[in-house]
Amino acid sequence: MPTYKAPLRDMNFVMTEVLGAPQQLQQMPYYADNDTADGDLMQQVLVEAARFVEGELVALNRVGDQEGCVRHDDGEVTTPTGFKAAYQKYRAAGWTALDADPAYGGQGMPHLVSNALVEMLNSANVAWGMYPGLSHGAYTALHAVGSQELKDLYLPKLVSGEWTGTMCLTEPHAGTDLGIIRTKAADNGDGSYAITGTKIFISAGEHDLADNILHLVLARLEGSPQGTKGISLFLVPKYLPTADGKPGERNGVVCGSLEHKMGIHGNATAVLNFDQARGWLVGEINKGMNHMFIMMNAARLGTGLQGLGLGEVAYQNALTYAKDRLQMRHEPRVNPGENADPILVHPDVRRMLLTGKAYTEAGRALAMWLALSIDTEHHHPDDAKRQEAADLVALLTPIAKAFMTDNGFDIAVQSQQVYGGHGFIQEWGMEQFVRDARIGQIYEGTNGIQALDLLGRKVLLDGGKKLQKLAATLQEFVEEHEGDEHIGAYADQLGKAAQQLGSLTMVIGQKAMQDGGQDEVNAAAVDYLRYFGHVVYGYLWARMAKIAQDNIDAGKDRDGFYLSKVQTAKFYFAKLFPETKALAATIKAGNESLAVDDRAVFGWEHGLVNA
Amino acid sequence: MPTYKAPLRDMNFVMTEVLGAPQQLQQMPYYADNDTADGDLMQQVLVEAARFVEGELVALNRVGDQEGCVRHDDGEVTTPTGFKAAYQKYRAAGWTALDADPAYGGQGMPHLVSNALVEMLNSANVAWGMYPGLSHGAYTALHAVGSQELKDLYLPKLVSGEWTGTMCLTEPHAGTDLGIIRTKAADNGDGSYAITGTKIFISAGEHDLADNILHLVLARLEGSPQGTKGISLFLVPKYLPTADGKPGERNGVVCGSLEHKMGIHGNATAVLNFDQARGWLVGEINKGMNHMFIMMNAARLGTGLQGLGLGEVAYQNALTYAKDRLQMRHEPRVNPGENADPILVHPDVRRMLLTGKAYTEAGRALAMWLALSIDTEHHHPDDAKRQEAADLVALLTPIAKAFMTDNGFDIAVQSQQVYGGHGFIQEWGMEQFVRDARIGQIYEGTNGIQALDLLGRKVLLDGGKKLQKLAATLQEFVEEHEGDEHIGAYADQLGKAAQQLGSLTMVIGQKAMQDGGQDEVNAAAVDYLRYFGHVVYGYLWARMAKIAQDNIDAGKDRDGFYLSKVQTAKFYFAKLFPETKALAATIKAGNESLAVDDRAVFGWEHGLVNA
Repeated sequence: MPTYKAPLRDMNFVMTEVLGAPQQLQQMPYYADNDTADGDLMQQVLVEAARFVEGELVALNRVGDQEGCVRHDDGEVTTPTGFKAAYQKYRAAGWTALDADPAYGGQGMPHLVSNALVEMLNSANVAWGMYPGLSHGAYTALHAVGSQELKDLYLPKLVSGEWTGTMCLTEPHAGTDLGIIRTKAADNGDGSYAITGTKIFISAGEHDLADNILHLVLARLEGSPQGTKGISLFLVPKYLPTADGKPGERNGVVCGSLEHKMGIHGNATAVLNFDQARGWLVGEINKGMNHMFIMMNAARLGTGLQGLGLGEVAYQNALTYAKDRLQMRHEPRVNPGENADPILVHPDVRRMLLTGKAYTEAGRALAMWLALSIDTEHHHPDDAKRQEAADLVALLTPIAKAFMTDNGFDIAVQSQQVYGGHGFIQEWGMEQFVRDARIGQIYEGTNGIQALDLLGRKVLLDGGKKLQKLAATLQEFVEEHEGDEHIGAYADQLGKAAQQLGSLTMVIGQKAMQDGGQDEVNAAAVDYLRYFGHVVYGYLWARMAKIAQDNIDAGKDRDGFYLSKVQTAKFYFAKLFPETKALAATIKAGNESLAVDDRAVFGWEHGLVNA
Repeated sequence: MPTYKAPLRDMNFVMTEVLGAPQQLQQMPYYADNDTADGDLMQQVLVEAARFVEGELVALNRVGDQEGCVRHDDGEVTTPTGFKAAYQKYRAAGWTALDADPAYGGQGMPHLVSNALVEMLNSANVAWGMYPGLSHGAYTALHAVGSQELKDLYLPKLVSGEWTGTMCLTEPHAGTDLGIIRTKAADNGDGSYAITGTKIFISAGEHDLADNILHLVLARLEGSPQGTKGISLFLVPKYLPTADGKPGERNGVVCGSLEHKMGIHGNATAVLNFDQARGWLVGEINKGMNHMFIMMNAARLGTGLQGLGLGEVAYQNALTYAKDRLQMRHEPRVNPGENADPILVHPDVRRMLLTGKAYTEAGRALAMWLALSIDTEHHHPDDAKRQEAADLVALLTPIAKAFMTDNGFDIAVQSQQVYGGHGFIQEWGMEQFVRDARIGQIYEGTNGIQALDLLGRKVLLDGGKKLQKLAATLQEFVEEHEGDEHIGAYADQLGKAAQQLGSLTMVIGQKAMQDGGQDEVNAAAVDYLRYFGHVVYGYLWARMAKIAQDNIDAGKDRDGFYLSKVQTAKFYFAKLFPETKALAATIKAGNESLAVDDRAVFGWEHGLVNA
């Protein structure tokens, strides 16, 4: 069965040495005043988090996969053996409150810290981690736009973990296209609304971990316009709270069935039927899409962390296997006494493992950079700093979601490959990582949708302003390290790629303004996101290599950690970064080769698109 | 539930228009004398094959996945509902005998035809298709090297499908590294041997489809040398045949357990315990590895066909879904009366689908080219032609295995992606294609091992002779079509890539002769195979585009089939072939970035490899 050790040393490196997070956070009174941004305290919290995750959740991962969730005739759902007990310990230890607002019982720790906790949860047991994960999304939206009355009533329950939350967006006919949802809301005239409709794919939508479930539901209020501008957000509790805040009357929302899925079996993916369920408006009428995106952005980074966490645990186990498995001989022999050497000696095995290591460590740096930026966006006293951080988060969130989940899936597949035939066998656990990682590329907006969000909305919509700001940061770094003995070559590769990213953006931007321009954006978006991802990871790897090299030069590399960083950076630029060469070509190729004749190529008589 | 229609039109195109197979086969008396190479007959056989496969096997695919195989306490195994009945119909219709030797009851059809049948089986139900597939492998080895007595006794049973066969290679500690197997053979002194040991991962290793199972087993005869030069091949029947060829006494081979796997649940993957089981030597003592490779080469092409078949069926279903699923709006609108358009209008969806189409159709052309070459290798009257064909098959088999299964897996994943969230749900069937496709990259020699076989054994070992022969064919094609109005640009891209393949080979070959040279081969192999695969597919796409364009120019494109070829070729060169740019860079990067410090990077104290 797979094992897992939280990568505390690497988390510490990124937080303190790469990001200088304690100093940054100390500039924010919200944290400084509460003493929650102290570097030692943050470390200690992560050590405790690792202890909990390693001790309570790793062993439940396979149980969850094998048992799955069970729906009973009354619509109630039982989670796998051990899930409920672990959740009770988790919330008793205060982990649900970690980065929540002290005004509602939270501990007020930086988002940066909870980000690291979530990575660990995803490595240990992604299906389990989704229960508190969804609650956190609901907390975030309600905290941001809910009325004071709603917040006072519900936030303490979410923060304590006594109750959990969900996001109810998708309907059978409407996934990506939420503008066409059919769930309706009617004004009850008493401050509440009657919600009616069917929602599908609701993660953590029904379960036995908590006493009540708070559904955040997108619905169209009677009389609202069609499309995304007529959608509002409602809070629909499973049980209506009593005056003293206990679960009271059962509300009209029932789990109609659970999906049978490829992976994340331990999480209940529910069909929820709302029949005149009582709900309360969250935020403003017809602003539901905007409010929902508050959840979605957190959920997207959270999904990226699933790719990161699964990549990390798959890598760790493949590395262990590669040290243990003796197969074929290598010159010079490592095991001259045995008839074969550990497969870790073979360069192709090393290539697969280093791919996992390089993507995972860069992903961790990106995720923590964004998490710290979210803290900055919310709590920095300087308006300009807050805006700058918000822009960076907006720009890089689709990359964190898509690039990290694509890489996470690939790492899981390659780590499974290290096991040979044993990787295909369930008891080794590697195939579960592959199945569990696959969903990250699909939900919370498919990775294709992330790419459109990046290129269409985040880059082109403001004329490239957010991109230029980031490009300036990169350019500064490149110039500073031009000719550097150790990382000069990386700076050079990075600088050229960043420039090419700019020129590719210009080319697409120009095409986008012509007839059929939206198709050009759509045709380039996925490759563009991947190119952009490499530029970001290239920047992070070059920075990490520089810090590590400085430590080596100062004689501070006691255990080889910094040498590992330097050598992994070298691998990244030699073996992974060159993907940009192919991507540049396919981005330039644009939509022309996709505008094929529908009848001839696809046997589609519906009409000749782009004819 | 997924559907499947055999791509008969495309198969016909490749067989007749691309390969000119009927004319080629008519040059071989083996086929010409039997009238089995007649183009119309071959077509008719494939039409019948498609009828059987579509009617009997498609519906059993999900049943097989859900039920799996069940092992009983006595070691007997029950296959999923319907598998046995379908197998009885299959063999009653003579499909097990299709390309088998008429001397043993076969129909003597070309391997080219059975290749197309196998592709269909893999699209419809890969787990089911493995039962006859493994039998065919056993037939091939026994036919090639078995004694006349063994052939007379056993081949008619394999040909009729009355009995099935297996390949027993892997042991718990020995997968890639068969030289260290521990299964032993002792001479019984009566012409038989006593086989003792444990084999794992034996596909179709135990089941209820047939009355007897013939295991071909690698074992070390007492007194034989260590390593691969001391391994012999034995035939071990489950039941010892009686004098009249019925299953008689139970032999000492028992299924100890079945594996629980990620996919191909309908095929029984057995642990087989051999305890003094009676076996008979197949071929020569200590030549077992060579003999086994006769099976393995067929099995490797067969595994490639799994990638092809699964890619085809995944593509077909994703295309259907993309026409049906309405989501978002496209300008100009295809469905102005509806509130959304079919997602097939979106360029990124088209990109995913065209990826499936382009890889699948090139893969089919490669597989059929190799199948025809196998026919030529075995039956051409001209020695030189036979050798030439044998060399081509040897060179391209690892590409067919690895490139086709890697692409097949990627197509399954991308086709699943087209379904969005529904792709993750079991009832849609797409996630089964992903799980079933995954094993093709692992078994019959992992794709990493295929790459080493290609670069180390097939290319470098003979100083590049086989490669140069193929390169000359490509160069001739390139020169012939230089400046061609329609495919000149493809010829140009292909010519440059083929030249670069040559120079990359030289660079690796030079490094290979230096100290640690084996590591350089190992470090480059996987990327080299992928580069090589693109050169082969590029050649095939350019050829297919040329034939198609000629037909268009001659006014013969009644239904758009040729236009489809031309446009898919364009897509291939615009969007897939450029991967070679990245691969060239990573191949050139060599082993340097992989020769990291083991202790620092991998926490491995075992020794400093490549220090």
